[in-house]
Amino acid sequence: MKRAFVLIANKASTAPFKLNDLAGAAGRMDIVCRCIAQSLLLSHSIRKNVVFYSILLGNPDPPKAIKVVGDEVKYLGPDERNIAGLIKKALSLKVSENWVRSTPGFYIARRSLSEILNELKDENFEIIYLKEDGVDIRNVVKKFKSPAFILGDHLGVPRDLEKIILEFADYIVSLLPISLQADQCILIANYEIDRIRIM
Amino acid sequence: MKRAFVLIANKASTAPFKLNDLAGAAGRMDIVCRCIAQSLLLSHSIRKNVVFYSILLGNPDPPKAIKVVGDEVKYLGPDERNIAGLIKKALSLKVSENWVRSTPGFYIARRSLSEILNELKDENFEIIYLKEDGVDIRNVVKKFKSPAFILGDHLGVPRDLEKIILEFADYIVSLLPISLQADQCILIANYEIDRIRIM
Repeated sequence: MKRAFVLIANKASTAPFKLNDLAGAAGRMDIVCRCIAQSLLLSHSIRKNVVFYSILLGNPDPPKAIKVVGDEVKYLGPDERNIAGLIKKALSLKVSENWVRSTPGFYIARRSLSEILNELKDENFEIIYLKEDGVDIRNVVKKFKSPAFILGDHLGVPRDLEKIILEFADYIVSLLPISLQADQCILIANYEIDRIRIM
Repeated sequence: MKRAFVLIANKASTAPFKLNDLAGAAGRMDIVCRCIAQSLLLSHSIRKNVVFYSILLGNPDPPKAIKVVGDEVKYLGPDERNIAGLIKKALSLKVSENWVRSTPGFYIARRSLSEILNELKDENFEIIYLKEDGVDIRNVVKKFKSPAFILGDHLGVPRDLEKIILEFADYIVSLLPISLQADQCILIANYEIDRIRIM
């Protein structure tokens, strides 16, 4: 079953950044890196059925979107610095409306959230907004066919973007009644689906 | 409910290391960092009921053990580089059999796995060995009172250490029939307990 994750990265840099300050000057790019890892990685293997998107909204040139396609990624180390290097490489390319490939499986484009959501709808994904006051995932996970989970970083989802998400959302889903980090939400969503699909 | 995690870090450096090569020269210290984050962190808060241990078995001076006490940690950023800086600081101290504090909540000592397991038993923890062919966590999680989960890094648990764990183990538990990274196992164990305790 194909799955997608879309992270809204409110402050993530939209130009190449220093690898030594991911959590600072790069605008919490460490969160984007961890979300890529938890979307795509298992122990010594890659989830080929997963596509990861992030909308980067930080300075100096927002919005830019990155896309990581599990089925095409060749090698992906799980450490933040390695993944950040691949994002940095993508950010060094000139962007247009079309996806441009930087390294195997890594793409970049000038796309907004609503364009990404339209792209997912066109590919028959269900749009699932991860939000603390949604319905418990265990009540609905069995219904998912091709879920695309939309979530915010440490700053959450800005109100104008939430309005867009709500126009597209098929489900509003919660994982726990406590506040989790974005990468934790992604891993738990993957895990709850694995429980249905693998066990 | 108090919880503990014990990571066996087969190659993790036992001397101060360079922060720019956590996944290489530091002996996969990136894994230790991610395991600390997933043991202790929620969004914008710390799990005060969790204690994390790692047995560092890499060169040049193994074994050394680090302990991170959720209830004492003051500030802990979730990015690998920040956590690695705190481990590096601990590794710069002279070690003895007794725990020495390096920064709030971070301790280091010359301790072996069996000494750590004895410490946990003395504190009335149940020893739970995380292993792919164990019983499904959902069948036993309700019985846990004070679980201490023992797990290996990307290289697994060496046979001589597994023998020691099995002498102590109250449960042998599996999370999924697919192979997960150590930090993923820790987050899922926390999540399955949260499901029982919070919801």
